[in-house]
Amino acid sequence: MERYDIRARRIPDSTIRRLPAYLRALTRTGNERITSERLGQLAGYTSEQVRKDLAYFGAFGTRGVGYDAASLADEVRRILQLDQNVRAIVVGAGRLGTALVRHTDESASDVAIAAVVDIDPAVIGRTVGHLTVESLDRLEALVVERNIGMGIIAVPPAGAQSVLDRLVNVGVRAVLSFVPRSLAVTNPDVFVQHIDLTLEMQALAYFVGSTARTQS
Amino acid sequence: MERYDIRARRIPDSTIRRLPAYLRALTRTGNERITSERLGQLAGYTSEQVRKDLAYFGAFGTRGVGYDAASLADEVRRILQLDQNVRAIVVGAGRLGTALVRHTDESASDVAIAAVVDIDPAVIGRTVGHLTVESLDRLEALVVERNIGMGIIAVPPAGAQSVLDRLVNVGVRAVLSFVPRSLAVTNPDVFVQHIDLTLEMQALAYFVGSTARTQS
Repeated sequence: MERYDIRARRIPDSTIRRLPAYLRALTRTGNERITSERLGQLAGYTSEQVRKDLAYFGAFGTRGVGYDAASLADEVRRILQLDQNVRAIVVGAGRLGTALVRHTDESASDVAIAAVVDIDPAVIGRTVGHLTVESLDRLEALVVERNIGMGIIAVPPAGAQSVLDRLVNVGVRAVLSFVPRSLAVTNPDVFVQHIDLTLEMQALAYFVGSTARTQS
Repeated sequence: MERYDIRARRIPDSTIRRLPAYLRALTRTGNERITSERLGQLAGYTSEQVRKDLAYFGAFGTRGVGYDAASLADEVRRILQLDQNVRAIVVGAGRLGTALVRHTDESASDVAIAAVVDIDPAVIGRTVGHLTVESLDRLEALVVERNIGMGIIAVPPAGAQSVLDRLVNVGVRAVLSFVPRSLAVTNPDVFVQHIDLTLEMQALAYFVGSTARTQS
């Protein structure tokens, strides 16, 4: 089977991060041809960006005709390895963690949440979506048993570094962190994506403008 | 009062997006001096990036001595306008929306959630954190009455564009969207930040690596 060499990382991270938006647009388009202009419009990028990104993996549209949407969608899915049953564990079954489990259950992300764990005995045993919350003690066992490749960290800051270290030690290489703190990673093969809602809101405050403020 | 001209946007968006991480690091440092190296380390950026970003608003560290952490924190807070009582409305009191209200209540973001609305009569009237869910019909009234400058959209995709349009029409200029779809904005003064959990997880799948997959 043809496989992209992940270690080589020939495709820039910035391109990888745009591919899911292209995939969503292509999936909506269905079994038709689509131009880079239209694809860019649907995904929220310029047509130049689309052509540049897709050229990285040898997808070239035909001038005036565009790309075959269905086969390009398959190709993008293969590059992102979304055809490979990616399974994730959610660490932290608090409000955000449970919202994430349920959100993912309902989204067509091709990533399945296969386990959710928490440290709080009062929470362990509860049902969240299609899963039962298990003990944080079972983190490593669950990752191995359920063949989990992605970690989603939604624990309070104090426990986050330890959770990340344990995930990395048991072989998890892709981590999504909702922890409002930067985490240390020494293994260059590990990719940690931070989503920090507090920082997002603070940056956004800059754009609120003076109109709404001067009334206060 | 000295005020940065927001319309002029002299500070690049990319710099603005890093400022909250610097602010967090500075706040932890307390009333001491901090070097660009240390600040970068704490915030997760290089010292070169720190010096370049801070120079945009005329903050220059003294060689070998660094920046005064407390006064630099004040300056960053002022630039981000976090000293201006920014208030936000959460639209959509579903699982994600309620998690966001409670998360923000607990975070020291300097942005206050001042209202939460939903379209579902079964949800209207419920208590979420310190707020009562109100009707989506009251969106415009609440924005005006409570002097709200930021919108947080956590509704299903079908209703999202209409919500964004209504927020923009009533004067909201900064929007955080958790909607898994790109939204159209024609007003150049409006800044919409998307957080799309589905796309984040799909992009992250690329980094899972082949080890965890080949066992499946």
